[in-house]
Amino acid sequence: MKVAIVMGSKTDYEVVKKCEDLLKDFNVEVTTRVISAHRTPNVASEFTKSARANGYDLIIGAAGKAAHLPGVIASYTTLPVIGLPIKSSTLDGMDSLLSIVQMPKGIPVATVAINGAENAALLALEIMSLKYEELSKDLENYRGEMRRRVIEDDESLGGF
Amino acid sequence: MKVAIVMGSKTDYEVVKKCEDLLKDFNVEVTTRVISAHRTPNVASEFTKSARANGYDLIIGAAGKAAHLPGVIASYTTLPVIGLPIKSSTLDGMDSLLSIVQMPKGIPVATVAINGAENAALLALEIMSLKYEELSKDLENYRGEMRRRVIEDDESLGGF
Amino acid sequence: MKVAIVMGSKTDYEVVKKCEDLLKDFNVEVTTRVISAHRTPNVASEFTKSARANGYDLIIGAAGKAAHLPGVIASYTTLPVIGLPIKSSTLDGMDSLLSIVQMPKGIPVATVAINGAENAALLALEIMSLKYEELSKDLENYRGEMRRRVIEDDESLGGF
Amino acid sequence: MKVAIVMGSKTDYEVVKKCEDLLKDFNVEVTTRVISAHRTPNVASEFTKSARANGYDLIIGAAGKAAHLPGVIASYTTLPVIGLPIKSSTLDGMDSLLSIVQMPKGIPVATVAINGAENAALLALEIMSLKYEELSKDLENYRGEMRRRVIEDDESLGGF
Amino acid sequence: MKVAIVMGSKTDYEVVKKCEDLLKDFNVEVTTRVISAHRTPNVASEFTKSARANGYDLIIGAAGKAAHLPGVIASYTTLPVIGLPIKSSTLDGMDSLLSIVQMPKGIPVATVAINGAENAALLALEIMSLKYEELSKDLENYRGEMRRRVIEDDESLGGF
Amino acid sequence: MKVAIVMGSKTDYEVVKKCEDLLKDFNVEVTTRVISAHRTPNVASEFTKSARANGYDLIIGAAGKAAHLPGVIASYTTLPVIGLPIKSSTLDGMDSLLSIVQMPKGIPVATVAINGAENAALLALEIMSLKYEELSKDLENYRGEMRRRVIEDDESLGGF
Amino acid sequence: MKVAIVMGSKTDYEVVKKCEDLLKDFNVEVTTRVISAHRTPNVASEFTKSARANGYDLIIGAAGKAAHLPGVIASYTTLPVIGLPIKSSTLDGMDSLLSIVQMPKGIPVATVAINGAENAALLALEIMSLKYEELSKDLENYRGEMRRRVIEDDESLGGF
Amino acid sequence: MKVAIVMGSKTDYEVVKKCEDLLKDFNVEVTTRVISAHRTPNVASEFTKSARANGYDLIIGAAGKAAHLPGVIASYTTLPVIGLPIKSSTLDGMDSLLSIVQMPKGIPVATVAINGAENAALLALEIMSLKYEELSKDLENYRGEMRRRVIEDDESLGGF
Repeated sequence: MKVAIVMGSKTDYEVVKKCEDLLKDFNVEVTTRVISAHRTPNVASEFTKSARANGYDLIIGAAGKAAHLPGVIASYTTLPVIGLPIKSSTLDGMDSLLSIVQMPKGIPVATVAINGAENAALLALEIMSLKYEELSKDLENYRGEMRRRVIEDDESLGGF
Repeated sequence: MKVAIVMGSKTDYEVVKKCEDLLKDFNVEVTTRVISAHRTPNVASEFTKSARANGYDLIIGAAGKAAHLPGVIASYTTLPVIGLPIKSSTLDGMDSLLSIVQMPKGIPVATVAINGAENAALLALEIMSLKYEELSKDLENYRGEMRRRVIEDDESLGGF
Repeated sequence: MKVAIVMGSKTDYEVVKKCEDLLKDFNVEVTTRVISAHRTPNVASEFTKSARANGYDLIIGAAGKAAHLPGVIASYTTLPVIGLPIKSSTLDGMDSLLSIVQMPKGIPVATVAINGAENAALLALEIMSLKYEELSKDLENYRGEMRRRVIEDDESLGGF
Repeated sequence: MKVAIVMGSKTDYEVVKKCEDLLKDFNVEVTTRVISAHRTPNVASEFTKSARANGYDLIIGAAGKAAHLPGVIASYTTLPVIGLPIKSSTLDGMDSLLSIVQMPKGIPVATVAINGAENAALLALEIMSLKYEELSKDLENYRGEMRRRVIEDDESLGGF
Repeated sequence: MKVAIVMGSKTDYEVVKKCEDLLKDFNVEVTTRVISAHRTPNVASEFTKSARANGYDLIIGAAGKAAHLPGVIASYTTLPVIGLPIKSSTLDGMDSLLSIVQMPKGIPVATVAINGAENAALLALEIMSLKYEELSKDLENYRGEMRRRVIEDDESLGGF
Repeated sequence: MKVAIVMGSKTDYEVVKKCEDLLKDFNVEVTTRVISAHRTPNVASEFTKSARANGYDLIIGAAGKAAHLPGVIASYTTLPVIGLPIKSSTLDGMDSLLSIVQMPKGIPVATVAINGAENAALLALEIMSLKYEELSKDLENYRGEMRRRVIEDDESLGGF
Repeated sequence: MKVAIVMGSKTDYEVVKKCEDLLKDFNVEVTTRVISAHRTPNVASEFTKSARANGYDLIIGAAGKAAHLPGVIASYTTLPVIGLPIKSSTLDGMDSLLSIVQMPKGIPVATVAINGAENAALLALEIMSLKYEELSKDLENYRGEMRRRVIEDDESLGGF
Repeated sequence: MKVAIVMGSKTDYEVVKKCEDLLKDFNVEVTTRVISAHRTPNVASEFTKSARANGYDLIIGAAGKAAHLPGVIASYTTLPVIGLPIKSSTLDGMDSLLSIVQMPKGIPVATVAINGAENAALLALEIMSLKYEELSKDLENYRGEMRRRVIEDDESLGGF
């Protein structure tokens, strides 16, 4: 299991790290890169074109503002690309969300919530569970763990 | 290759059919269902809980307005769930988009553009290409075909 | 008089508590629960399906982001369901509001303002006043009290 | 069972009629009025102040643009007031929705979806089911009917 | 010259005070009131109905969220009513703005910018300058003063 | 009573005419001009600077998109300026509204609803009623007429 | 004077043609291309990288939805790139606008109004007037022509 | 190389300074002015009308709220005008952006991102590179420097 996380700017790492950590918790091999769609476009195209051949199962692209990175990456590979919109200093992430999710016909990006770093990781795991069947069990366990935490919170309010 | 497309209302079928058709072009076995998260919630949970066991590789959920269907489906399976926001009679699809993409931590939905039916299909194919390796070639061919059409359009303007 | 308040995440409790407190001020028996539409969907459906039989007069559902909880609850009961959109870390609560209020035909959710916890309680009381007639007097008194506070504020500015 | 439907302008009647019809299907006595919060404010206050004494169980207020009517009505009664935002010629109903749902602390309005006339009626019935217990059965039947229609639609696609 | 400033909640006074102060600088007699469209509607209607007879030249209404106050006031008088939208804790004042400015045909409210307290005062002065001609000179002087301050700022940057 | 209506483009006249007609119904002398803030800025400044001297009581500015015209006019006169946002081909008038209403400190524009041509006229009349006292009676009559029409509509539904 | 107009899809040509026509009216040599940032990314990078060497003075990029094209082009050249957001079938062009204008630090795109094809051409001419001084005279004439048309419209209303 | 930066209020200088500094790094002669479209309109028109004759290559206009300044400046010159929307205290800069970018046909403003001060400078440099050819080399170097910084950030994460 091998995933690349690519972010448009190192300042996104604070959010992105939660995605990286969660993937590592599931024993995924993670490559985390800072690649800019606009400032290092050649790195973006080269890294992405060879991603499938290099054994990556999918790529997660995180970016803010006019967040072109996930879409640009998606144009160079037929691997699934997950888009993680980062909330920036203005417009509360709406610009990032629309720039990522509203991709034109032909090149999809699997978009998750604004700053939804954990969900980007979980979606990656769900996708990989098609190939790595044991993941489906691990994901079930993770859901069980979430369920337990919600139930604990529920019990803590004494509402039972 | 087996995909379920679930829509919240039969009126969504006009958009959804383009997704179904494209999947069938790639020889995917498609089950198309009308299941309402709110009016037939039991059908939603039962169909979804058994989806992996029944051989589905992933589920595509299409819905409009307060589009809960993809998220509700995602809560019952660890298969990847693709969310297709349908533009409704008010708010231009913004309500559908936010209701699908802004999923809380723990249960991701892979969201595509408003009314982006073809991209939902293509994302499904990219995801399945992890497991069905021959799909990666088919997707490359499809991209090549798209490229040719853009180039034809380009040539038709005589701008070369 | 018996009301269930259900929130999607314990972090919502800071807002929700104002709803709970106000209901208790009116001597309503309140059950406060943390139930997630997506992480504990079975708890949601079971609790809700039996709510009328268990003597609940109505249910208040509070949630943020893609706030499916109130709608999901509403799909399992014909009791009135009040939706309380919680402002989350992005989009200023607009996503919560639209995910709750834009319910499709057939399953309504009685939506109040973003973070409008007190109004969720007051709406619950108004609804219960159909059955518990003495509440109508208590609500009149509460309005009288509000009126007096506005008048005090008015007088404090010396504008009379 | 007695409900007043009040709309701000007769042009809203095209939408509102679906609410009226559905209530009548459930044998509710319906009074439908055109009352403007701004052009006939005295009618609004007089009608509303005496609504509980005149046997109304609740009031549904429909309005567009700066849709003050439901809130103004709510300020004169402790009966539940349901707000139905009407889509107007600009802004796609967002102005109506915010003017109705964002009520300040103290005076709630139970808001349904933009142009959600049927849901306004169904919410009214759910609220009245607290007092008129037989309604809960009728509402269950209505849900059953909805369920059957969804299942018919589902079957019509042959996806079973 | 006599102006009433009416705000929906005393918490709005922090913003509103800048309006009051500026009017007083121009020797306007100002009555500042806390009157709630929803909690003290009778005070609102009585105060407003007699406003012209009581010598008021116009009324400024300030409110947040579903900001009905200016419109409600405007429905009870043919004096000009200026609406001042107050930024509240969610939605950045967009709800207040739309609830004030989108008034239906027949009852206008002269809306200024969100939290634009000084502009509410200046608009009041401009309106009164029709009747009190000396105000037009005072306003010219005020503009001259503003001009001088901009020019000072301009010079301070040394860009001349 | 003398009012200037200035629009940014002759295409706005379809909306603006309703404003002009209503003013003429009240025997106001109306000058209707096409003046562009950007294409004929000198005409804008010259016309506006002399407006008070030329006997105008106020100016109504109508414009769409980045609707600078009302604000530009307001910068050249201390007469009240009413801003009428025109709905354009994109963004449903939101751009026009924000460009008109969000004026910076110092130069207010009295903004009415998007395409609210009649309300621009009525606001003009209310403002002029400070100076022309007989207008207050005419406005009361107009309101009476509106009231009668609402009551007729009300009666036509048979809801009394 | 040599300008490239690049659009993401031939369906944009209906809007883009007005840009092309206006540039040709000023005797600019125009190359109009259909190049997709996502479907023909290599064409985009190759065409753009050599644009300065091939004598282009600037590039105009037109695109809808998640409109990455202008930004992607801008990343491959230091020529000025003008972004023309195209209104698409949902969201009224807001997605196109934000995807084009909100470019991250380092790679600017000179954005004009949604569907503002003529303004893209005029901005191109203004930019080229730095190098081709005679253009400044032609632009003055064009402005004069616009001025005359506004004045004609103004006169046609008889408001002089 | 000579550029004028004009801002609507000295409070914008905190953002604008980054634009000024970057231009000076490229040895551009910069004139920084505080000129208000509404409070010092004559200064705006006089400065702008003579800008080309005074040797300016272009003008950058920065403003917030109903940000008319860039458009007003653009109406007085055929030099390129770059618009820099400033985020203000409400609406997160959306009002500034729309007021600047949605310019009507005939008078374009080259708009950059909200608070995108550096990009305003870089766009100015790209525009001037048509006339001052050596700038194209300097811009390439700047891009190289940006590229190096991204690559350093990339390496710092150890993802290579």
